[in-house]
Amino acid sequence: MLNSNKNLSLDWTKVHDCFPIEKHLQEELNSIIQAKRSLLEKSGPNAAMTGWLNYVDEHAQTILSQMAPLVKDIQSHSDAVVIIGIGGSYLGARAIYDSLTHSYASLKPELFHKKPILFWAGHHLSTDELVELLDVLDHFTPSLVVISKSGNTTEPALSFRLLKKYLDERFGAEEARHRIFAVTDSNKGTLLKLCKENGYAHLPIPDDIGGRYSVFTAVGLFPLAIAGIDVQELLKGVYAAKEDCASPKNNSLETNPALCYAAIRNILYRNQFKTEVFCAWSQKLRNLSEWWKQLFGESDGKEHSGIFPSSAIFTTDLHSLGQYFQDGERNFFATHLRVQDEYSLAQGSIKRKLSIPDAQLNDNFDFVLQKDLSDIQHDAQNGTFLAHCDGKLPTLVWEIPEINPFWLGYFMFTQFFSCAVGAYVRGINPFDQNGVEEYKNNMYALLGKPEFSHKASQIKKRIQTNQRLKSVGITSKN
Amino acid sequence: MLNSNKNLSLDWTKVHDCFPIEKHLQEELNSIIQAKRSLLEKSGPNAAMTGWLNYVDEHAQTILSQMAPLVKDIQSHSDAVVIIGIGGSYLGARAIYDSLTHSYASLKPELFHKKPILFWAGHHLSTDELVELLDVLDHFTPSLVVISKSGNTTEPALSFRLLKKYLDERFGAEEARHRIFAVTDSNKGTLLKLCKENGYAHLPIPDDIGGRYSVFTAVGLFPLAIAGIDVQELLKGVYAAKEDCASPKNNSLETNPALCYAAIRNILYRNQFKTEVFCAWSQKLRNLSEWWKQLFGESDGKEHSGIFPSSAIFTTDLHSLGQYFQDGERNFFATHLRVQDEYSLAQGSIKRKLSIPDAQLNDNFDFVLQKDLSDIQHDAQNGTFLAHCDGKLPTLVWEIPEINPFWLGYFMFTQFFSCAVGAYVRGINPFDQNGVEEYKNNMYALLGKPEFSHKASQIKKRIQTNQRLKSVGITSKN
Repeated sequence: MLNSNKNLSLDWTKVHDCFPIEKHLQEELNSIIQAKRSLLEKSGPNAAMTGWLNYVDEHAQTILSQMAPLVKDIQSHSDAVVIIGIGGSYLGARAIYDSLTHSYASLKPELFHKKPILFWAGHHLSTDELVELLDVLDHFTPSLVVISKSGNTTEPALSFRLLKKYLDERFGAEEARHRIFAVTDSNKGTLLKLCKENGYAHLPIPDDIGGRYSVFTAVGLFPLAIAGIDVQELLKGVYAAKEDCASPKNNSLETNPALCYAAIRNILYRNQFKTEVFCAWSQKLRNLSEWWKQLFGESDGKEHSGIFPSSAIFTTDLHSLGQYFQDGERNFFATHLRVQDEYSLAQGSIKRKLSIPDAQLNDNFDFVLQKDLSDIQHDAQNGTFLAHCDGKLPTLVWEIPEINPFWLGYFMFTQFFSCAVGAYVRGINPFDQNGVEEYKNNMYALLGKPEFSHKASQIKKRIQTNQRLKSVGITSKN
Repeated sequence: MLNSNKNLSLDWTKVHDCFPIEKHLQEELNSIIQAKRSLLEKSGPNAAMTGWLNYVDEHAQTILSQMAPLVKDIQSHSDAVVIIGIGGSYLGARAIYDSLTHSYASLKPELFHKKPILFWAGHHLSTDELVELLDVLDHFTPSLVVISKSGNTTEPALSFRLLKKYLDERFGAEEARHRIFAVTDSNKGTLLKLCKENGYAHLPIPDDIGGRYSVFTAVGLFPLAIAGIDVQELLKGVYAAKEDCASPKNNSLETNPALCYAAIRNILYRNQFKTEVFCAWSQKLRNLSEWWKQLFGESDGKEHSGIFPSSAIFTTDLHSLGQYFQDGERNFFATHLRVQDEYSLAQGSIKRKLSIPDAQLNDNFDFVLQKDLSDIQHDAQNGTFLAHCDGKLPTLVWEIPEINPFWLGYFMFTQFFSCAVGAYVRGINPFDQNGVEEYKNNMYALLGKPEFSHKASQIKKRIQTNQRLKSVGITSKN
């Protein structure tokens, strides 16, 4: 039943079987093909931010050469590296790292990883997470990689302060300096200035690529190379996907999954399917879902419109969200990611099949005796797609042959391309995210940032009116 | 600005400020009060499954006494315990464990935990996760706790087979037998039979409490007690919440947050706010969100209706979903959980405040010099609530004083109560989940389970028509 050639595919049978999609498809595809043309000709909205289209063939090898001595240097003196970044400055690298790394790598690095372990910081303001990270760093010999275009984002900037202080105190300022690396703007910005003032080695973020499209620049490649991921294979996958998606003649539904996906998403959205749940079939792909949600959520969510991106992990969530999938509101659709060769996920571990053993238990499960766990997973998938479709839930299924750098690169670039052309058809700029500034402006005013002082008293007054409508439990406790 | 008495509260100012909720509130509250009455009088739908209402006062102490020798036994010979369960049989315990345990507990148990570490299995069919768990167990001296009402659920049953085999091979059958514990039906079912046949110690799951309402029975209490969590404090919180929510005279919006929440959710839902995003402000609360999604999703999602439960972690996801929250479709609302004392989250670590140090960096962040990270987080929260409300996104804010067993118990019971009365008003049975069976039936047929053999050929034929509509990338790779 599964792909026998090693290809990426998108199966939309289970959209068709519960929603009359055909009657809209050809017209939508025509619009998508036009959008593809404007994307490639750089004549669509915000074309200045489409550098990700050509980065892999034009710049990636240069950056790999520039990175190589830094990677070697870090690997020679560090068994752990804290990646400091938020949003597009960490999600892509983290998605790939988590997919390809043993879940217990940090517990027994010498057995399960053998390269520097990555830790993550700068993506929150939570005292607990930072305190716990500081606790654990004492047991490693760490370096830092700070990733920020400007250096002005609060979360990574504050984490950097705290972690730099930690390195200074632990190793002395001179050694600490050599344990700090940055990925940032090559011409301007606060972080670049810090690099120059303090002599930190640094790598560039291109001007024409936004955060959520940046994983295949130094933003993603540097952390991944440090962790020993095969970034050349990753880039080969990206290149192959580009050849497929962007080829001028490849405009058919049957051979261009990026276009097919964009068309189906737009049609479903216009027909009141306003939420999309990205369903991965392993916890190891959880951060791939997080990356996917940023890509589509930030690109689509404009002008009080766009598909709301949500996620689930199956079969786990069949026992929590499954009821809703089967019987809840019919205003959403599910997009699954299945992996043909399940074993490919178990990288770093002793790769072994798990077949169901005779465990001397009268548990009524002998009907799967000696069956392979991955075959059982595939049966669960097929059973699920069918059940949800019977419940009138439109269901799309991405399939990739394996979880490896090549197919992750291929899949992720396909999502970029699909996201961009789909938004172009909707008349939306997929490369900005002005809405993200609103809370920051309020926060800066509350924190007393000088440029925001004129707004401070007004914001503070408004905050004081918070909690005027409040329900308070009777019990109190000290 | 924050709660000065130590209470749980629900602030709905930022619903009021962007949606005219008042005009519906009194009427809805009247219905909610009626629903509360039928819940307490056990005259509503499926009243047979409301045992969770009285379990804490009537049965919890008995079960704690029954548990105590087993807990002592496990702790004396195990430094890790694998909890085997799925859905309601693990999510509550995991939510509480993750909230209260050092994130790196398994990495340095001797420093960060000092009690048996919990690992989790039986909640998926992923080869990778199980292989990695087996890899890591070699470095501990583990026991197993299998949690299943019937023993017939595929995921935990198959994990149990594999893990029992592992114990048998590692410790010999006799010692393995003493390392296996179960929580299951006390009168019937496959797992009970296995316990009797093999001499496994076991604890009961009551007949009148469904999975997602079961965390305060042995289902949750046993794993948590093993891990050294103060379950008496947890139960005190549950009891206090019950006293507040269920008190016959406490029917006002101002003093009964469970009723207030149920009323507001129902009103928003009827006014086309069809998705709710539960936003926690620390990664450590991530599995509390997962627990919450099961509770509401499985209870509400019936008859093609109900609020779709989604989740986010802030500030992390302000940099991925923030754009959508600010500017996307206005068909959802956000329910935040904030913690007054942020430090309480960092349990198990050396509790320390993090204030922003002078790190000898010209990074333009001196305006927060010496400021406490938790105060910055609170400013980020206030800034966010205001920004989203300005964007017309109804925003509810739960606040609890601390993350500790008492307030977790209090909060979680409040959610039970609110969920049940809200569903009663909608005429929905909040205690069943028939939709979950659909995919299982298909899967069993595909796997060749004898009772499903009559359906097998029909299901297989339907599966064969999957993938007849498929978009396949051109590039292939071996």
